[in-house]
Amino acid sequence: MRIEEVLKNCLNRLHDSRVKEAMSYSLLAGGKRIRPNLLYETLKGYGKQESCGDEYAAAIEMIHTYSLIHDDLPAMDNDDLRRGRPTCHKQFDEATAILAGDGLLTFAFETCAKAETPSDIKVRCIAMLARMAGADGMVHGQDLDMNESLCSDWNYLVDVHTYKTGCLLSIPLMIGACLCGQSEDIIEQWHSIGNMIGLAFQIQDDILDVQLTPEQFGKSNSDARNEKVTSVTLLGMDKAEKMMNDLYTQAEDAIRHLPEFDGTGLLNMVEQIRTRRI
Amino acid sequence: MRIEEVLKNCLNRLHDSRVKEAMSYSLLAGGKRIRPNLLYETLKGYGKQESCGDEYAAAIEMIHTYSLIHDDLPAMDNDDLRRGRPTCHKQFDEATAILAGDGLLTFAFETCAKAETPSDIKVRCIAMLARMAGADGMVHGQDLDMNESLCSDWNYLVDVHTYKTGCLLSIPLMIGACLCGQSEDIIEQWHSIGNMIGLAFQIQDDILDVQLTPEQFGKSNSDARNEKVTSVTLLGMDKAEKMMNDLYTQAEDAIRHLPEFDGTGLLNMVEQIRTRRI
Repeated sequence: MRIEEVLKNCLNRLHDSRVKEAMSYSLLAGGKRIRPNLLYETLKGYGKQESCGDEYAAAIEMIHTYSLIHDDLPAMDNDDLRRGRPTCHKQFDEATAILAGDGLLTFAFETCAKAETPSDIKVRCIAMLARMAGADGMVHGQDLDMNESLCSDWNYLVDVHTYKTGCLLSIPLMIGACLCGQSEDIIEQWHSIGNMIGLAFQIQDDILDVQLTPEQFGKSNSDARNEKVTSVTLLGMDKAEKMMNDLYTQAEDAIRHLPEFDGTGLLNMVEQIRTRRI
Repeated sequence: MRIEEVLKNCLNRLHDSRVKEAMSYSLLAGGKRIRPNLLYETLKGYGKQESCGDEYAAAIEMIHTYSLIHDDLPAMDNDDLRRGRPTCHKQFDEATAILAGDGLLTFAFETCAKAETPSDIKVRCIAMLARMAGADGMVHGQDLDMNESLCSDWNYLVDVHTYKTGCLLSIPLMIGACLCGQSEDIIEQWHSIGNMIGLAFQIQDDILDVQLTPEQFGKSNSDARNEKVTSVTLLGMDKAEKMMNDLYTQAEDAIRHLPEFDGTGLLNMVEQIRTRRI
């Protein structure tokens, strides 16, 4: 996959160190690479080459990976297993995992800053990325998630998923559109589409979490262990499945109605996500 | 102080949340604000207004603060006291402290991206900031520091201080010079000056750590508790004091020899740092 080479090339720019080893361990653990591919498909749908999104795709995957490393820490979800392998703090130690996360987050912005994009557009992309990843974006979602067990409200859970998952699924679509010169209004429409996919994706995760063993799922079933409220415990399996499918369908319809955009590749990808079994 | 208002204005841009509360708690804890003031003095020495450095000064202080929050965590230095108050994870909890650090680091880059600076220069500043703060900069220093007790070598300790402290003291000087249109070569000279000040500063910290009680110092004496190797344990007090003074003098000489730069304000500030008692 294109992104694997891009990530390796990025990491090659860093000097060898223990923290780089931990960053590489987690970044090259072979995740599904959904976010980079969402960016590439958005570019292709606008008739642009994938290569002009490489640095941004890598940066988004670095931020996704850092969020998983910190989320897995004992003080957060306390997970031992991630993508079928020991989590970063299990493989190394807690201090190294904290620093590897910090290093990946910082490296994401360095990588964007080094992209071969006109500076005006680059600055817009960096500002959006920071917004969606930060304390009004994904970090806010992580924070809401920490208090989730105190709350059994569906609207609260939607907020958790919108921020925690939606933001990082929206940003590749938004950056893709920005790199193709789309307006703020269109970028905001991509934001909504990302939120729909994010919520659907998270409900699907809750469903798979119940249906699969940790070995099949490739990560520990920490939600059940931590007795967390999930969409399945709140809505029941049937309603959760219906809501998931409705959201994917809404997102697909919205993609079909975007001007100047050929949605073939992206719609195909959304269908693959909808039918994923892990 | 100017930076206090700037930081408050930045934080006002974020929605209210628990993680924002924790970010504000640590960011507005009234540190010495050495790094923002180094940036302001660099701008003034080149004849530029402080205001054009506000966002960068704030961003650097955010990164400094995030590094302290994560450094204080139980898995790292395990400190209870910082700037005379409970550390972030003591005041809130570990998960919130991890997220507050992540939020500040991310917000630093958003803040830079929003600065009113020509995009070309802004991108250069963001790239430098990320480099100096990341896995080849400060984060590398934190990582080296975690292994410090295994090693009693002076060169190793110099590396720790150069990366852990020097990088973040260099970056305000480097960004100040970049904002004033200075060349890569001059920016590299500022980098060296920052490293000298950083090493001197850290030796001074080790000296004060021995001389002062935690109450006077405003933070826990974790180095002694963790039986860490310091410049004082390695060199002895007399040699450590001489080296500290020599380094400050070298830095001052280098500042005096920079072209187009009126060092009056900055030299005054370095003298204040050299004679600090906390």
